[in-house]
Amino acid sequence: MISALPADLERALNAAAGRQFSHLFLVACGGSLSIMMAGKYFLDRHSGTFACDIYNADEFVCRDPRRLGPDTLVVLCSQTGNTKETVRAANHAKDRGAMTIGMTLDQTSPLARAVDHPIAYQASYTTGKAIDAAYSNYGVLYMLLAGLIDAREDGGLTDDLLISLSHLQPAIERAHRAYADRFETFAARFAPREAIYTLASGASYGAAYSYAICVLMEMHWYDSQAIHANEFFHGPFEVVDRDASFVVLLGLDETRSLSERARDFLIKYGSRENILVLDGAELDLGGMSEHIKPYLVPLVFFDTLWRFAYKLAGLRDRPMLEGRRYMKKLSDY
Amino acid sequence: MISALPADLERALNAAAGRQFSHLFLVACGGSLSIMMAGKYFLDRHSGTFACDIYNADEFVCRDPRRLGPDTLVVLCSQTGNTKETVRAANHAKDRGAMTIGMTLDQTSPLARAVDHPIAYQASYTTGKAIDAAYSNYGVLYMLLAGLIDAREDGGLTDDLLISLSHLQPAIERAHRAYADRFETFAARFAPREAIYTLASGASYGAAYSYAICVLMEMHWYDSQAIHANEFFHGPFEVVDRDASFVVLLGLDETRSLSERARDFLIKYGSRENILVLDGAELDLGGMSEHIKPYLVPLVFFDTLWRFAYKLAGLRDRPMLEGRRYMKKLSDY
Repeated sequence: MISALPADLERALNAAAGRQFSHLFLVACGGSLSIMMAGKYFLDRHSGTFACDIYNADEFVCRDPRRLGPDTLVVLCSQTGNTKETVRAANHAKDRGAMTIGMTLDQTSPLARAVDHPIAYQASYTTGKAIDAAYSNYGVLYMLLAGLIDAREDGGLTDDLLISLSHLQPAIERAHRAYADRFETFAARFAPREAIYTLASGASYGAAYSYAICVLMEMHWYDSQAIHANEFFHGPFEVVDRDASFVVLLGLDETRSLSERARDFLIKYGSRENILVLDGAELDLGGMSEHIKPYLVPLVFFDTLWRFAYKLAGLRDRPMLEGRRYMKKLSDY
Repeated sequence: MISALPADLERALNAAAGRQFSHLFLVACGGSLSIMMAGKYFLDRHSGTFACDIYNADEFVCRDPRRLGPDTLVVLCSQTGNTKETVRAANHAKDRGAMTIGMTLDQTSPLARAVDHPIAYQASYTTGKAIDAAYSNYGVLYMLLAGLIDAREDGGLTDDLLISLSHLQPAIERAHRAYADRFETFAARFAPREAIYTLASGASYGAAYSYAICVLMEMHWYDSQAIHANEFFHGPFEVVDRDASFVVLLGLDETRSLSERARDFLIKYGSRENILVLDGAELDLGGMSEHIKPYLVPLVFFDTLWRFAYKLAGLRDRPMLEGRRYMKKLSDY
């Protein structure tokens, strides 16, 4: 059970200590980019000193923001550490004089070797290993950001975060049990659909994004999109009819009312049977600090939604990771 | 033909002159949010002094970024000036002491009255009026940002932008003629589809976003998503089969190679007949400055794509604006 920052993370924070960065860039691709969205929400809420941008790694290299330079910090993430775009982004950031921190599963990977400070994390579903979610990509990113903020703005975030992370894995296990029946019911309804949308706001938007593009599209070939809960009312809501299928993530952060409004619309103009709502308020998050809960809810959502994806896979006769037709199968892409 | 900054824009720039802002927030909803994405690209490329965030208006209010304060500038946009979320965001920004600039068609609207400095722009498709695109939402936003940068960083952007904008409307007219046959062909192919995706990167991503959510979803009820050209390879590309229908925007900015790579994949693993490519390199942009062209290409794309939407509407027997079932028809949303 986690009780202190991991040693590699501590080393990175020590190296960053005393430096005043004008800007923090969070850079990755796909699922690894999605966690950066939650990281930025955390930073926006708590930091008055860091400006923060999120970019897809190739966009970052080509866009080459003029603010990128020696007084900036670039945090990158790639699960395998082999993502070419992310390695290229790390090298680009170093060429511009920025300090680089790289999160990856494999400390011998190209990303780990490219950055100034590699940090390890753990993953479960894509590796088949049982892990403590405190050490997942989200968990490690939050610890890093809390450490950066605490060193500059005296937020006292790290202590509360560590206590809360120590209660995360049990909360996830409880959520798996609590959602099992609901997932069974909705998997039968959603399996034959052509399109399934995800909807969220604030700290949970990244989880919705990853689920839409890395699970529903990548592994199930559904048509999908992660719709921001308020942007929903400025166009996307017109697709809603009685058959429209949505996964709605109701977080506990300051933007909760946005997703509640969208949920209410969906239930009124769509059909309750096709709206799968995961509500942070129904989770047992015992032991977590009240002001940290909103940031950990997306991890619970995302972890449990993997189970839902496997349920869909069973009904659709889709083999998930092994069923992809292009990813990791084409040498030229 | 435009030859100088509009008077209201000049007044806003004068009011902002001499103030050093730590942060620029670009805030709006839906189609008005999409232009902010291009604005941020322009700013990222040219400004070392402005950090810049884009937020949906309701997200902005609830997230309440800690950096928002008296040394920040908030630029908002709403076509009617009646968008409740955007008016709320303007009031929130003023409560936090920020300077506010609001872009809208109607200078007597709630947004115009809420902000410190209202700026007018013009719109064509949603109003039925013929306009000079120099005065469109994109055109006015670029003029504002160029003026802000020039006053602080001596970029000389405004002069080149004004000259380029004076050549924009003729370039759009030429593009309409150049694309007419292609749109005819693709409308017949796309009309019976269930899902149509848009794909872009860099300065053109916002145009793809607006087309996906405000046109294809809102007015045609297609399933859709604006897919970032590199994110495409980290999940979404798995949906590609011979029937997959994409609109690909190939801009002229620094990220062009990202969209070229995605286009090549789509043509190889999808079907050329279902990939509608709009390529900035095939446009006649005569008279525009080379380094401004990349920012104006998305306006040409978006304007011409409206014509494509009307072609689809004809074949699908959909009345476009009048055919929406919820937007502006429900009193409670």
